[in-house]
Amino acid sequence: MTALTPPEDVIARVDTVLAEYLEGLAGRLGGISPAAAELIEPIRRFTARGKRIRALVTWWGFELAGGDARKHPGIARAATSVELLHAAALIHDDIIDDSDTRRGRPAIHAAYRADHRERGWQGDPELYGVGAGIIAGDLCLSLSEEIYTASGLDRIADPEAVRRHDDFRRDVMVGQFLDIRLQAAAVDAAEIADRAHEVLTYKSAKYSVEQPLLLGAALGAADAGLFTLLSEFGLPLGRAFQLRDDELGVFGDPSITGKPSGDDLRQGKKTVLVGNTLTRLDERTCAWFADRLGAADLSDSEIERMKDLMRSTGALAAFEAEIDVEMARAHAALDRLAEFGLSSADRAVLADYAMRLTRRTA
Amino acid sequence: MTALTPPEDVIARVDTVLAEYLEGLAGRLGGISPAAAELIEPIRRFTARGKRIRALVTWWGFELAGGDARKHPGIARAATSVELLHAAALIHDDIIDDSDTRRGRPAIHAAYRADHRERGWQGDPELYGVGAGIIAGDLCLSLSEEIYTASGLDRIADPEAVRRHDDFRRDVMVGQFLDIRLQAAAVDAAEIADRAHEVLTYKSAKYSVEQPLLLGAALGAADAGLFTLLSEFGLPLGRAFQLRDDELGVFGDPSITGKPSGDDLRQGKKTVLVGNTLTRLDERTCAWFADRLGAADLSDSEIERMKDLMRSTGALAAFEAEIDVEMARAHAALDRLAEFGLSSADRAVLADYAMRLTRRTA
Repeated sequence: MTALTPPEDVIARVDTVLAEYLEGLAGRLGGISPAAAELIEPIRRFTARGKRIRALVTWWGFELAGGDARKHPGIARAATSVELLHAAALIHDDIIDDSDTRRGRPAIHAAYRADHRERGWQGDPELYGVGAGIIAGDLCLSLSEEIYTASGLDRIADPEAVRRHDDFRRDVMVGQFLDIRLQAAAVDAAEIADRAHEVLTYKSAKYSVEQPLLLGAALGAADAGLFTLLSEFGLPLGRAFQLRDDELGVFGDPSITGKPSGDDLRQGKKTVLVGNTLTRLDERTCAWFADRLGAADLSDSEIERMKDLMRSTGALAAFEAEIDVEMARAHAALDRLAEFGLSSADRAVLADYAMRLTRRTA
Repeated sequence: MTALTPPEDVIARVDTVLAEYLEGLAGRLGGISPAAAELIEPIRRFTARGKRIRALVTWWGFELAGGDARKHPGIARAATSVELLHAAALIHDDIIDDSDTRRGRPAIHAAYRADHRERGWQGDPELYGVGAGIIAGDLCLSLSEEIYTASGLDRIADPEAVRRHDDFRRDVMVGQFLDIRLQAAAVDAAEIADRAHEVLTYKSAKYSVEQPLLLGAALGAADAGLFTLLSEFGLPLGRAFQLRDDELGVFGDPSITGKPSGDDLRQGKKTVLVGNTLTRLDERTCAWFADRLGAADLSDSEIERMKDLMRSTGALAAFEAEIDVEMARAHAALDRLAEFGLSSADRAVLADYAMRLTRRTA
């Protein structure tokens, strides 16, 4: 196994490939019509920033399977493809959640809506924003496929890689559907944690870490044993990542998360943490919590009471313990990866990254 | 060149592949969560019907290039993939156009919205319908990629096929964007016909006929000369198809089109026909037409006046002549296809299909 490429080098490479690709595309679309370029600029701005978690993990999966990124520069395109899929998911997610900001800037549909208003165009700015945002997301999905195919990696048609790629892009959509369905449906308090675990697994844990890791590994020609081990590392790490995110959605410091305190409670999200709390409450308090969760007139003192109940029932402590268990699983898998030739330096790279993904101030 | 497979046989084969594929998928998603199957059933219903124009054209492109569908049954999957891309485009299109019906039944987002209301779920049924519809369309896009890759056709990784596939799925999205932008923007009357031609070319003519034909041909290993000739047949046929559709959107018989008389005028669509009419009007009448086009309180008598203006200015006759020119071009290309071994029987199959695609009662 070659040494893992440092995160900053992967990110720089992906940023370059993405910028070059979108520039080439803007030229091609400009050939169709000058107005077509208006479709690229918002995508360029939107994708210019990001943590590149999935690209990094794809790249490392390739290297962990023995792939040499210097000999196979196409891995940069495959990793960029994963980021474009993610951009599509985020662009559509913001429409689905009716959320106007992303990373502290206007969401794409909100930018198109504002553009419509500023130009004093005809028709409903809201509908135009949603429409253009849907198309921008669809285009990112398409571009993701284009650049993946263009990677030219040897094993792209390998049945294992095909299956991993299919699962990756399909399961996130299924997880997204399970999420909006869970948020909309009437669900018994006792069932919320189970359903929320399903959403967390498919919409986030698999999609953010396990699946891109396995996709990269398949492109690097991993053997069956390595896939198992990478799942044993990636799935619990992905779970811990999303569980921490759920915790920060309630207890996070607004100055760090960029979201108001208790934001997930205001939005009424049925998360694992909420599910765990509800099952620990007496009937009357449970009914109050469920009734006020996401209420339009939810007060700050009610949010504080909800947080207190999370602490006092032991739900938060149990939740923290769940994160610890997942992280312990991920670290145990890292230890076993030594059998596959993982050097202690590379083990440190992965352990450090796992820590950064799941830290409290993320 | 082998004989072209009759349309009804292609359609039956695509219907079977699609049904089997979605059934298998429902099983896989059921393994994730029973609720996930709710994502498949609306897609199954939505895709169960359709004219399968693009699948048919893909299949014939393969055969025209010398591909033998009996020896390469994977062409059925490639053709089905094209229908799934089209399903995605239609599902998203209905959200973008805020249109609640499709083929006389509820659009997918409208069906999800009704489901939310009937179950008395939480949150906004409108937002849930749009969200679930976006996800259903995204899933169709993904499935289109899955089944295309699974076709196992020899030439799927051939640069020509890759390029044709990339153009096909990308350009329709660009065309869709140009369409909503044209409908929203303030556009000079003199410029409308040009912009509408762009939309017509990319959103419909290329996407409905030329590009699937060329994709099929690339999968069947066509040579450069055949591509040129197939473009010379497919692009004018696609243009004539969409021009006729625009005409039916104004002059179509509601009992046949299933849409109210003058529907495109009520919706205010800036089509080639509208553009041609505006440039033939005096300044005052042009201002009236442009102002009333798409007005919420547009009366039946105003619609009749608009139709009369289309006739009296000669715009409609010029439009009919444009369709005739496109059809003559398509037929001339058919004649030249004889040089590539097109039999007279196959020529008749294509000519008959071209006639059916562009007839006044479509």
